[in-house]
Amino acid sequence: MSDPRVLVAGASGLAGALAAALVARHPKLELAAVTARSEAGTPLERLYPRHRVALVLERLESLPLRDFDAAIVAYPHGAAAEVVAELRRAGAAVVDLSADFRLTDLDAYERWYGEHAAPELLGEAVYGLTELERDRVREAELVANPGCYPTAALLALAPLANAQMIESVVIDAKSGVSGAGRGGGDRLSFVNMTENLTPYGVEGHRHLPEIEQELGRLGDGAADVTFVPHLLPVDQGLLASCYVRLAERTSASALASLFAERYGAEPFVELVDEPPGIRDVRETNLCRLHVAGGERRALVFAAIDNLWKGAAGQAVQNLNLMLGLDERDGLS
Amino acid sequence: MSDPRVLVAGASGLAGALAAALVARHPKLELAAVTARSEAGTPLERLYPRHRVALVLERLESLPLRDFDAAIVAYPHGAAAEVVAELRRAGAAVVDLSADFRLTDLDAYERWYGEHAAPELLGEAVYGLTELERDRVREAELVANPGCYPTAALLALAPLANAQMIESVVIDAKSGVSGAGRGGGDRLSFVNMTENLTPYGVEGHRHLPEIEQELGRLGDGAADVTFVPHLLPVDQGLLASCYVRLAERTSASALASLFAERYGAEPFVELVDEPPGIRDVRETNLCRLHVAGGERRALVFAAIDNLWKGAAGQAVQNLNLMLGLDERDGLS
Amino acid sequence: MSDPRVLVAGASGLAGALAAALVARHPKLELAAVTARSEAGTPLERLYPRHRVALVLERLESLPLRDFDAAIVAYPHGAAAEVVAELRRAGAAVVDLSADFRLTDLDAYERWYGEHAAPELLGEAVYGLTELERDRVREAELVANPGCYPTAALLALAPLANAQMIESVVIDAKSGVSGAGRGGGDRLSFVNMTENLTPYGVEGHRHLPEIEQELGRLGDGAADVTFVPHLLPVDQGLLASCYVRLAERTSASALASLFAERYGAEPFVELVDEPPGIRDVRETNLCRLHVAGGERRALVFAAIDNLWKGAAGQAVQNLNLMLGLDERDGLS
Amino acid sequence: MSDPRVLVAGASGLAGALAAALVARHPKLELAAVTARSEAGTPLERLYPRHRVALVLERLESLPLRDFDAAIVAYPHGAAAEVVAELRRAGAAVVDLSADFRLTDLDAYERWYGEHAAPELLGEAVYGLTELERDRVREAELVANPGCYPTAALLALAPLANAQMIESVVIDAKSGVSGAGRGGGDRLSFVNMTENLTPYGVEGHRHLPEIEQELGRLGDGAADVTFVPHLLPVDQGLLASCYVRLAERTSASALASLFAERYGAEPFVELVDEPPGIRDVRETNLCRLHVAGGERRALVFAAIDNLWKGAAGQAVQNLNLMLGLDERDGLS
Repeated sequence: MSDPRVLVAGASGLAGALAAALVARHPKLELAAVTARSEAGTPLERLYPRHRVALVLERLESLPLRDFDAAIVAYPHGAAAEVVAELRRAGAAVVDLSADFRLTDLDAYERWYGEHAAPELLGEAVYGLTELERDRVREAELVANPGCYPTAALLALAPLANAQMIESVVIDAKSGVSGAGRGGGDRLSFVNMTENLTPYGVEGHRHLPEIEQELGRLGDGAADVTFVPHLLPVDQGLLASCYVRLAERTSASALASLFAERYGAEPFVELVDEPPGIRDVRETNLCRLHVAGGERRALVFAAIDNLWKGAAGQAVQNLNLMLGLDERDGLS
Repeated sequence: MSDPRVLVAGASGLAGALAAALVARHPKLELAAVTARSEAGTPLERLYPRHRVALVLERLESLPLRDFDAAIVAYPHGAAAEVVAELRRAGAAVVDLSADFRLTDLDAYERWYGEHAAPELLGEAVYGLTELERDRVREAELVANPGCYPTAALLALAPLANAQMIESVVIDAKSGVSGAGRGGGDRLSFVNMTENLTPYGVEGHRHLPEIEQELGRLGDGAADVTFVPHLLPVDQGLLASCYVRLAERTSASALASLFAERYGAEPFVELVDEPPGIRDVRETNLCRLHVAGGERRALVFAAIDNLWKGAAGQAVQNLNLMLGLDERDGLS
Repeated sequence: MSDPRVLVAGASGLAGALAAALVARHPKLELAAVTARSEAGTPLERLYPRHRVALVLERLESLPLRDFDAAIVAYPHGAAAEVVAELRRAGAAVVDLSADFRLTDLDAYERWYGEHAAPELLGEAVYGLTELERDRVREAELVANPGCYPTAALLALAPLANAQMIESVVIDAKSGVSGAGRGGGDRLSFVNMTENLTPYGVEGHRHLPEIEQELGRLGDGAADVTFVPHLLPVDQGLLASCYVRLAERTSASALASLFAERYGAEPFVELVDEPPGIRDVRETNLCRLHVAGGERRALVFAAIDNLWKGAAGQAVQNLNLMLGLDERDGLS
Repeated sequence: MSDPRVLVAGASGLAGALAAALVARHPKLELAAVTARSEAGTPLERLYPRHRVALVLERLESLPLRDFDAAIVAYPHGAAAEVVAELRRAGAAVVDLSADFRLTDLDAYERWYGEHAAPELLGEAVYGLTELERDRVREAELVANPGCYPTAALLALAPLANAQMIESVVIDAKSGVSGAGRGGGDRLSFVNMTENLTPYGVEGHRHLPEIEQELGRLGDGAADVTFVPHLLPVDQGLLASCYVRLAERTSASALASLFAERYGAEPFVELVDEPPGIRDVRETNLCRLHVAGGERRALVFAAIDNLWKGAAGQAVQNLNLMLGLDERDGLS
């Protein structure tokens, strides 16, 4: 039997291009096509030499969608829904990197992102934070891949949320510039970013409802969350520093046990004794977690590569499960 | 009358060298001598070409201390106290960049830094966060210059602490590598720092007692403070992101007024409408503050240059006051 | 008598903004107005917080040009000529940062830059590499400020060219990203520039005719020049590494003497024993030169800050001379 | 038959650690042991989390050398020779990353590096620039892996040298900081390197005799080479910009053909139409080459990752050949 044929739609962006590269070198998947709008006609490796993907970018409209077993969609928020719907109609299993299917509440979505092009699929979509939703992902035909900030924050907080230990939490997150996409204009120019660090989205960032929704589900109720992202002068890497006020007293060793139990067997989560640097996980699908604290306070630090575990890596991890493969295939 | 003659002791480190440069180009101070141990005999400008200070580094022992009207001491913690005591005996006004005279509680000092070489001077020393202690600095003969993290954090929190509005606060701080000194060995090598970001001192950083002491004084009681510093891949710059749980409800406009009243007339504090980037204040003595929030929460972001307002700049600002000059002299 | 009133036209770009800042803090000049097109109405300090220039950007058309004694024009190549002509008609002394008046040969100009809007002024313009043209600059009403690469390369090569010692030369130059302007789109985004280094203009860069013209004038004949620029992942700074095949044998000490004689009294040229790093001259108007070699070969390394000596700093240096001031005023 | 058992001696340095990682994930080699002196007892992944090599570093003295089929030695220059000799006596095939066996002339070696501990092996060693010495590497028991600068420079120049077209050449090379090793003290600290660029070894760098030796061999005679390395503020990456004065006239298309013929079939050399950026080859074993010129001049730009093709990657490429494997195994 031949390998599943995978389409990467929107492969000219940073996350889409990495997704294409990961599929291309995957031992059990075939990268069948890559698409882009304005760069159609260009070999992907001209845009991303390091990725060594020789496939030529095509226009999505020119492709027979029934030919693909699965697709990773890396379109901007708002534009993804329609393409996802089309691919689903054609029978492909889809992992969508956008926010379009992450929020279960249509109103919340439309408040942050505008009108939704395929609300009928919201019920079908599974929120693909693999470690927290593995069984549902395995059964899913449509996975909404989490945002990079929620991925780190939720992995940091899930054990506490599950134990209903979170009274309130401050998430101070820092991300490399690739999290904001390939171009970015003046604001993301080298000259403006080097030797700089800037908080943004202070009055509310659109990853907040996603974090609140999932913490609420895990903890069985609303969560009191403060979340502020910062832009770092690095290429890839993301750290979420989480400061939790606990609902009740605990000890450092109880915290350590809680995390060890929850994540001990996870292939892509590493519990470490020292606070992790983002460089430790660069170009890997790993999340490194460090937990400290005691009394009424827990400090959890989660480091990921925003393009890997925060986007394309987790997309492949999810796709593996959806296609009945080992979730580690092609990722180590 | 001739300009006050100023010694910079320990001018081979980053903060000492900048202090020397600031004094050298100060319109009303004379840089009389610069000292260092292992680099004695070298012109300072050979170590720091950009600073253009031609003076040759001398050994402190070779200098007649009575010749100096004032001194900035940039020795390591622990080593400073003795030199400061000597200079005070010789009659010089002293600004000490180390931690040796920042903590009023000798026990707290010795817990974090080891034995104190001149505890008899602790009572005399004034904590030199200029904006908060201007009148006492004006009268002081010995000023303990604050640490870089406390400078940013306390400027961010003072208006709230004064109003006794802080129930608890999380301070997530990020500093450029120069905050850790000139060398640093492997840990601070370019190869380990670039494309990285690391939390440290998670179990307790020695700037914490300094922050707690001053917040306690400002707020008239103990403060519940969580403080975690992070090392950034930038040279100079520091951001303190402060997340305050307020003792009572307030509004965004009330917060804005509180800060405007407190800092409206301050020459080196700027209140800004957008969260500040550290690049905005690079190579200036400014602290840029942005406040947001409402209900039971306030978010305050303070950006400084750790070597300027966080060390040498504030030292000159303090020295100006001690010597009866305008505190802005030589700093704009 | 009041200070000369200076206009900076095109102050929203990196070089124009720095020019405005240098004029604003200049002890003997008055920054009378700053202009920009799309950002008109914005205080300059909102675009460049560090520069602390509170003046609001205006549209050039709204200003009475007769009110200005002098102007620094920081328009794009091609667009500058017309503005310069207008300012000259209004009687202002002008330093133009663009290439529009650097080439004396109209044909050469039009080959590289397109049609010239004010060719009648070419004869009047003086090429403002201050150290090489000081006397002519003093008399000039219109100075064409050199490009950043030519500034470094010509300072490195002038003593050899003057002595007619250059048989051929390879200039391998490296510049920080600010040399390419404020924005730059995708190509100059942080994500594309960090951890990168790229040669460009390999088939011919438009600073080449400028270098050839001046080397020819200095050396009294055509020069055999290879010039390749490279883009560095730094903000400010430029290094020209010059490899000269000499017309005749010489010795290391003869080379050293030649440079010492030529530059010994120059306030902004420093001859150094070790190859200079660009960081040594960051945010200064200095050029650091190191010369080595012997036999038929000379190696000269010139480091400048591309925005200072390579643009705005040298503009002020020239303006000082044109207005009868000390050329160092406002630059140290 | 089981996979060859490979030792990596000196695995705590940057190049040794990468060699260990490449062997560990190699489909046809077994990483049998890793050694280090001061870090013995530590799992390698604690020093280099990203590499994910769980093996514990051992002391070389504690290991039975007969157990290894092959070894990669990553010791400092001077210290390697003795270990190599021991491993050879024990029968292992050895790739040595140091300079100890690169120079065939003992006198030249001792002038640059001091006394040689195993001169008797010099005759046996093959200079392992794979693309130029493939057949000899295949037969070798001891391969001297080239330096990072010579690798890029020789790949750039070999076609011209072979055709005896080089009259003289200027090699202006730029390397990331990892080329200088893991620590580096003050000189390589982040604070000294960021926003900097420095030429070094201007009076003669020890990679020069290596370049001259090989160019001489390729071109059948002495070469007139000027070589100056520069230190870049990047982690990994190296660019050699080569400016060749040709012995006779040629055309751009003749140059292109010469390189296409020479390298068209090479798996790790890519000829590109635009000058390569070092980021294009980051974390790959590729060398990207761009050639331009005509008349009496050729310009060749070669980009490699200094730790891959410039060290550990090429070591594995060589080891593959020595062990009868496909040279691409484990490298793509």
